Amino acid sequence: MAMENKPYVIGLDLGGTNSVFGIVNSEGSVVTSTSIRTKGQNDLDVYMDSACAALAPMIEQVGGIQNIKGMGIGAPNGNYYTGNIELAPNLPWKGIVPFAKKFSERLGIPVVLTNDANAAAIGEMTYGVAKGMKNFIMITLGTGVGSGIVVNGELVYGCDGFAGELGHVIVDTTPEARLCGCGRKGCLETYCSATGVARTAREFLAKRTDDTELRKIPLEEITSKDVSIAAEHGDQLARDVYKFTGDLLGRSCANFTAFCSPEAYVFFGGLTKAGNLIMDPIKEAYDANVQNIFKGKAKMLISQMDDAQAAVVGAAALAWKI
Amino acid sequence: MAMENKPYVIGLDLGGTNSVFGIVNSEGSVVTSTSIRTKGQNDLDVYMDSACAALAPMIEQVGGIQNIKGMGIGAPNGNYYTGNIELAPNLPWKGIVPFAKKFSERLGIPVVLTNDANAAAIGEMTYGVAKGMKNFIMITLGTGVGSGIVVNGELVYGCDGFAGELGHVIVDTTPEARLCGCGRKGCLETYCSATGVARTAREFLAKRTDDTELRKIPLEEITSKDVSIAAEHGDQLARDVYKFTGDLLGRSCANFTAFCSPEAYVFFGGLTKAGNLIMDPIKEAYDANVQNIFKGKAKMLISQMDDAQAAVVGAAALAWKI
Repeated sequence: MAMENKPYVIGLDLGGTNSVFGIVNSEGSVVTSTSIRTKGQNDLDVYMDSACAALAPMIEQVGGIQNIKGMGIGAPNGNYYTGNIELAPNLPWKGIVPFAKKFSERLGIPVVLTNDANAAAIGEMTYGVAKGMKNFIMITLGTGVGSGIVVNGELVYGCDGFAGELGHVIVDTTPEARLCGCGRKGCLETYCSATGVARTAREFLAKRTDDTELRKIPLEEITSKDVSIAAEHGDQLARDVYKFTGDLLGRSCANFTAFCSPEAYVFFGGLTKAGNLIMDPIKEAYDANVQNIFKGKAKMLISQMDDAQAAVVGAAALAWKI
Repeated sequence: MAMENKPYVIGLDLGGTNSVFGIVNSEGSVVTSTSIRTKGQNDLDVYMDSACAALAPMIEQVGGIQNIKGMGIGAPNGNYYTGNIELAPNLPWKGIVPFAKKFSERLGIPVVLTNDANAAAIGEMTYGVAKGMKNFIMITLGTGVGSGIVVNGELVYGCDGFAGELGHVIVDTTPEARLCGCGRKGCLETYCSATGVARTAREFLAKRTDDTELRKIPLEEITSKDVSIAAEHGDQLARDVYKFTGDLLGRSCANFTAFCSPEAYVFFGGLTKAGNLIMDPIKEAYDANVQNIFKGKAKMLISQMDDAQAAVVGAAALAWKI
């Protein structure tokens, strides 16, 4: 990690609702952080003014901009090659936004940008459970399913900067496959995201007749959080939902391994809170479905990064590579 | 391509039946070649004696070993990291064979080894239609389906040297999915290899009642070659077999793109001889099934390498990278 004696980097986790900024040191600790509103900030220049105003005292706190090597941004639809955010449906700015360039001009430091899951992978590789690994796959299990793939020690960006969309690999080719928000059918994301888990719970409730505390909640209002609480109470249907989800995730990972034979899968996000309820079926289905030649090779790990800080630390980690 | 003034490399295409050796120049032309028998050569040292005896006059012909930079080997179950051939079912040597090391000791030059499909990918990148590309996927359609994946200008070997087994990605999750030689169900190889094409023809013949020249051949004896001849004659059932095969291949590639967003897919092997009969359905299914963000980006190419020489030239190309 060449640091040119500059001990800090800035990380920005750009979400549809809030923008979280942190200044991070070489050990991955957030030294100081703040956040501003993203939502409703339709004028990009006004947003940039607020962002820089929020950053100014933090930069002072670490001794000025000369102590900062660069800035890394994790953003939905962020393109590493161009530094642009392209057609992000949940951000206030339309079209193609030269986001990295804007920050670089304002702050006078190099700025790099990638999508959130890639930033998480860089974070794991720099500070987390994937430290020192040259080949691993990060899977983020949130509202959607994201991924960041590391091959030969480098993020896989592909020819256009958008590679690593494993949430949209089609894992169900039966006629009953679920419709995905992307317009296609059977994507991993329709099953293994928080939304997918709630959908599975509703399907199970409709098909089965056994007693479960989930029946107390109106069917259309059930969330993955409800499933998680019921599972913690030992509710069988809720546990079966996790088993179904983990099973499909494990089988999907067995397919991904044919691609890049990773040393590990690192899972991050709300669903991992279920611990063994989800990890055991992932491991079992992976072992049962992976090709013989790959058996027993890939570790199945849960990220140990602090939830609240992981995104900003991951984004910041990008800046060490400038 | 650093050549240190050594203008030649040796390539070995190691097959279960024959071993084909070639001395190749920097333009990818085979200057001289020969072959020896692999089959039945159960004693590895006797095989090495024959191989070196066959190579000796060829090496003399190009001015001696000092004109040769190194040797590249394409071998089934070849491991790039170790130079070993590991548990290859169709070779006479059992267990783990230090194949590259043996040749290096005998010839006194560096020797590298990889599997056949990876060698083909290196060949395309060095001399073929993928020249200059940093991200592409090579798909070899032979008795099986092999693949070599290039990301950021480098072959994807994974943590163990065995990555890039796209023939064993499960592409059919229905209960009717075909059983694969690897012991699992629904692998791409069971549909899109020469064997898979013959299997599809037999299925179509059993299900359909239309007239086709393929009915003249006993059902269990039909090969992909028969299907190819019938398709050339305009036989509808044979053409539908190609359509089915290309469609599944195109849909599978649409999934692979979510992984590494390649600039191109390069297809090689017998099935590509069908030209548009297979390429049109590949392209149509790819466009119809790939995520919107990737549409129109990946080229679908047929290798232009000479069939007889491609494997040896691909293996030789490995040696330029030593």
